[in-house]
Amino acid sequence: MRKFDHKDLLGMEALSVEDIGLILDTAESLKSISFRDIKKAPTLRGKSVINFFYEPSTRTRTSFEIAAKRLSADTFSLSASTSSMVKGETLLDTARNLQAMNPDVIVLRHSSSGAPHVFSKQVRASVINAGDGVNEHPTQALLDLYTIREKKGVIKGLKIAIIGDIAHSRVARSDIIGLVKMGAKVTIAGPPTLIPKGIETMGVHVSADPAVAVKDCDVIMLLRVQLERQSKLLFPSAREYSAFFCLNEEVLKGAKEDVIVMHPGPLNRGVEISNEVADGPYSVILDQVANGVAVRMAVLYLLIGGAKSDNVD
Amino acid sequence: MRKFDHKDLLGMEALSVEDIGLILDTAESLKSISFRDIKKAPTLRGKSVINFFYEPSTRTRTSFEIAAKRLSADTFSLSASTSSMVKGETLLDTARNLQAMNPDVIVLRHSSSGAPHVFSKQVRASVINAGDGVNEHPTQALLDLYTIREKKGVIKGLKIAIIGDIAHSRVARSDIIGLVKMGAKVTIAGPPTLIPKGIETMGVHVSADPAVAVKDCDVIMLLRVQLERQSKLLFPSAREYSAFFCLNEEVLKGAKEDVIVMHPGPLNRGVEISNEVADGPYSVILDQVANGVAVRMAVLYLLIGGAKSDNVD
Amino acid sequence: MRKFDHKDLLGMEALSVEDIGLILDTAESLKSISFRDIKKAPTLRGKSVINFFYEPSTRTRTSFEIAAKRLSADTFSLSASTSSMVKGETLLDTARNLQAMNPDVIVLRHSSSGAPHVFSKQVRASVINAGDGVNEHPTQALLDLYTIREKKGVIKGLKIAIIGDIAHSRVARSDIIGLVKMGAKVTIAGPPTLIPKGIETMGVHVSADPAVAVKDCDVIMLLRVQLERQSKLLFPSAREYSAFFCLNEEVLKGAKEDVIVMHPGPLNRGVEISNEVADGPYSVILDQVANGVAVRMAVLYLLIGGAKSDNVD
Repeated sequence: MRKFDHKDLLGMEALSVEDIGLILDTAESLKSISFRDIKKAPTLRGKSVINFFYEPSTRTRTSFEIAAKRLSADTFSLSASTSSMVKGETLLDTARNLQAMNPDVIVLRHSSSGAPHVFSKQVRASVINAGDGVNEHPTQALLDLYTIREKKGVIKGLKIAIIGDIAHSRVARSDIIGLVKMGAKVTIAGPPTLIPKGIETMGVHVSADPAVAVKDCDVIMLLRVQLERQSKLLFPSAREYSAFFCLNEEVLKGAKEDVIVMHPGPLNRGVEISNEVADGPYSVILDQVANGVAVRMAVLYLLIGGAKSDNVD
Repeated sequence: MRKFDHKDLLGMEALSVEDIGLILDTAESLKSISFRDIKKAPTLRGKSVINFFYEPSTRTRTSFEIAAKRLSADTFSLSASTSSMVKGETLLDTARNLQAMNPDVIVLRHSSSGAPHVFSKQVRASVINAGDGVNEHPTQALLDLYTIREKKGVIKGLKIAIIGDIAHSRVARSDIIGLVKMGAKVTIAGPPTLIPKGIETMGVHVSADPAVAVKDCDVIMLLRVQLERQSKLLFPSAREYSAFFCLNEEVLKGAKEDVIVMHPGPLNRGVEISNEVADGPYSVILDQVANGVAVRMAVLYLLIGGAKSDNVD
Repeated sequence: MRKFDHKDLLGMEALSVEDIGLILDTAESLKSISFRDIKKAPTLRGKSVINFFYEPSTRTRTSFEIAAKRLSADTFSLSASTSSMVKGETLLDTARNLQAMNPDVIVLRHSSSGAPHVFSKQVRASVINAGDGVNEHPTQALLDLYTIREKKGVIKGLKIAIIGDIAHSRVARSDIIGLVKMGAKVTIAGPPTLIPKGIETMGVHVSADPAVAVKDCDVIMLLRVQLERQSKLLFPSAREYSAFFCLNEEVLKGAKEDVIVMHPGPLNRGVEISNEVADGPYSVILDQVANGVAVRMAVLYLLIGGAKSDNVD
């Protein structure tokens, strides 16, 4: 059996091509659990998974919680808003306190890039980065890779466009690292103010015109416009953004006939994606959500269940 | 075995007399689980129940969570206040996203009448309406019916008074539909501004005088005065309301000697109910709470456990 | 087998020396569960534990939740902030409503001293006081006693200093009651405005000078400075407090060589404790957190699991 030789999942950066392949293969074998009559395997019975979200999140937190419980782990939800734990306490002390209760996994979302790395050094538990600042969101990238492989058979050699606010998106960063690692050809497009200088060094092409990026591509990945950050005025308005970057059927015509369209959710319909595209046959957005559960089951299993048994179920 | 042939529980409207009887009988056989030394049956092991409450609720949410866990289901709590899921996302997209994680049941409370019906059409999971706007709150009506049947042996032919803000109460609406369906004779009373025009078409009598409604009746159902909505000034004040509609022992004398008094909670003591009545021998208010768990176990069982096995335990 | 003859754990006041010994012994035998590969014993399967926290708390709530789940109990989290249950409802009615759902244990934190005692009289369930106003926080005292016994072998005869805001600390009150009961010699120190008049009647010595209190002692227990209450201006400022009462290595030199330093968390580094002391070899602060889980397992087990079986695992 191939080995997953990591204590933590902090980012796509640290994963090899083989690691990624192992996670995707494991997810594939675990996915069926969610579609059985009894959606539960005893794999992680007696393991403790703490979900600690400093930033509010329902989608990702629930996906992790479902993944953990379907493998029979116990889950504990901590949120910073209701947490006296963080009142005047350093991140280091919080990490050590959590460790003292001896969890097996801490799933951490934090507004500061690098927070999970700080945690990781303090705790024996496995740390899973569920999004840190503008740095990484590796399980999102893994579920995206899973979905692409599921729909296209391979990732290597595919032409992929990523469209939106690249500069503030940890999803974009993790996706780019993973896709380039797996041999895809990535072109990014977005308003010039939202594309980081020198991003070409990550191995991507850059275009200001979404039509150019989309041309003949196999996969289009859209990013969510963070309307709540619009106070920063990085682009004129949602309407302006939409006029240039909203993916509609017209733009989509330039892509390959069997293109798939992806989005990490939640959708701003009419801003970054048109209704026809969101609900059209090329949309795999809901597959991404379903695959998110399977990929998170795989990560939990490989981090804390893999060493003890070769038997997934 | 009688069959419960519904995907969802959206309201009392859709239930037949036989359906209601089946739910109450099932609740009766499940009730004892909560009073065993080990309060747990394996019936719904491996099932996923999502409690999604857009409006805050502890009472109803906890009752559903206890019901689900006592049948060994896994539960997941989502609240709109901490939910990025709802940020700029349509109700349809939220429903589809939840479905993608493949839950068996979604328990939904929402401030908009009809929201559970929207969900229901989008999801394969069973949807249970835990209160939608001023429309319905069917599990409350079912636990009320259960409590009446438990105390009185039958529902048919009973004389029942419902007193309070009928116009804004989904509890009243669901109770009226259920009671009339089961053959009870219902009289409603309340301030004229809080009684909807034409409510007689639902099969009830209307009185402005609570003493008239209470006269010779077997059951009195009180509604909670929503003091927090009092800004709307639908009645002059809590004190004024209390002077005319507070159920005290004086008013109660007009009812049958073995009358029972019900209230969905939480109580406004001294507003809609006096202390002597709330704590008196005719009060079955805490039986309602206990029966709520049993009725919700029954609904969960019939929706997602009934097809697979005839054996409740 | 020794018997734990209490329905509730409301405070250290009600516990005998034998009771405390039994809790600590039980905690010792349960502690290893948290360090097994499968961190779970079936002891409390099918039991329902409600954590009802009127005051926000992550640390204590999570510790109780982990303790309950590692013994296989079902847990339910209620918080007053999201709770319609408390809207206009008396504490008595809330207690009776919770009881109606037939939980085995209600863990209660409340800003009013005596609230758990009110609950206790209303419910058949066991009530555990998780902190009530400025009265008691017995599981904190028990985990402190456990940690002292673990590190020192005995409690009787030890010289112990408690430093900080004694007047507003339920931790200090419970610790003093427990330590004096177990035969320790306790000296308290703190700003004169934060030391209650007549506290000597509890069996402690009082000093305004922390150096005097620390002199030759075996254990130093620090209290958290409640900076958020500083509006009351009970002492001039955190800086002023720190100048006189911050435990640093200089002050520590007066204590015994094998002194241990304790703190209930979260730490205000540089206010009541210096970095060197917090991270130094005498600090047992993280042991306290780990022992908190074991002690809470023991309390749950003795209250609701002990009567049925002699077998802890």
